[in-house]
Amino acid sequence: MRKVFQEELAQVGEQLVEISKLVSEAFEKATTAFEGADIDLAEDVIAADARIDFLQNSLDERAIDILALQGPVASDLRMIVGSLRMSASLERMGDLARHLAQLARLRYPANVIPQPLQETFKNFAKYDLEIAEKLTVLLETRDLEVARDILKANTAVNDLHLSIFKSIARSDWTESAATTVDVALASRYFERFADHGVSVAQKVTYLVTGAWHPTSIEHS
Amino acid sequence: MRKVFQEELAQVGEQLVEISKLVSEAFEKATTAFEGADIDLAEDVIAADARIDFLQNSLDERAIDILALQGPVASDLRMIVGSLRMSASLERMGDLARHLAQLARLRYPANVIPQPLQETFKNFAKYDLEIAEKLTVLLETRDLEVARDILKANTAVNDLHLSIFKSIARSDWTESAATTVDVALASRYFERFADHGVSVAQKVTYLVTGAWHPTSIEHS
Repeated sequence: MRKVFQEELAQVGEQLVEISKLVSEAFEKATTAFEGADIDLAEDVIAADARIDFLQNSLDERAIDILALQGPVASDLRMIVGSLRMSASLERMGDLARHLAQLARLRYPANVIPQPLQETFKNFAKYDLEIAEKLTVLLETRDLEVARDILKANTAVNDLHLSIFKSIARSDWTESAATTVDVALASRYFERFADHGVSVAQKVTYLVTGAWHPTSIEHS
Repeated sequence: MRKVFQEELAQVGEQLVEISKLVSEAFEKATTAFEGADIDLAEDVIAADARIDFLQNSLDERAIDILALQGPVASDLRMIVGSLRMSASLERMGDLARHLAQLARLRYPANVIPQPLQETFKNFAKYDLEIAEKLTVLLETRDLEVARDILKANTAVNDLHLSIFKSIARSDWTESAATTVDVALASRYFERFADHGVSVAQKVTYLVTGAWHPTSIEHS
């Protein structure tokens, strides 16, 4: 019985890793589509999001079954409840990748982002992708050094988000209203994506250390 | 033992209702501050959000204790896990009310929304407040008629969100970039607020009927 239970717990962990990998993949494709105005890639991301939603539901069902059948306590219970939360954050990250792909599709064949800001958005994508990829590593290894890297990348994302909003507010900003809205929303999607990544990293840290806010992990 | 357990379950339900009431209150104040450029009211909402976060955490701790100590199964288990999800949605609705108050504070003493769109945003606020208030009723009574009202109000919110984005895209839109971004973000906050309300309504419906997507509750 105990052995079955441990296997079931391990499967929940593996499914989190699987979802996290799909989120990375979706996000990388979405930002590539976004940067290069590639409609096929955008369509791919939009279609693939259903798979992430499906996996989240199946993980949640499995977690609830474990709660019902095994009645886990202490750290096992925390891990199961934590998994429900982490899967919700990962699913939301998948949604945000889809939102970016939808923006790319909406503006195709034009680029969503005007030329002067494209470099900034490439940086955004770089840090967000780093967060997504390190999240998979963190879920696999539970190495808290990786959680700290995620926090650092999130700080960079927040700085970029701020710089975008400053650019829009400057007197020499001459883009159309539609472009302005696209830029603002896209910036917010990148920022929210990182934020959800931080939530997952904090949850893993909590599960490993039992401390909700270790000094190295600040609340964003 | 059984009696204690039922009392604990009831307390979780009551705490959800309490959080829901605070969210309604925060949202009503936030939109009043937002419409009337009232900075004191905006500060109130921003300060009060910590209370909602605190109550969410305390509800979650209580739910996890019940899982650990009582090992609930079947519908009780679903109710506890559902409560964890609903509290997360309600907490997020509180955050969105705070975002609106923060926008009001940022632009004070000016209005966030330019005059021609103020009426539309009043309608937004009306439907969102209806959703927030009916959510409390739904959590108290589990009357699915109320869930249907919430869905209807959400459709109205989505239509308003679309109409705002159409206004911005029109050739006669002459607002500054900063105002354009404020309008777009505010519109998104109102839309997300309703969306989270729908999530909670769907969760209650699921707990009552066991069916995740009854024909009258469409996925938004």
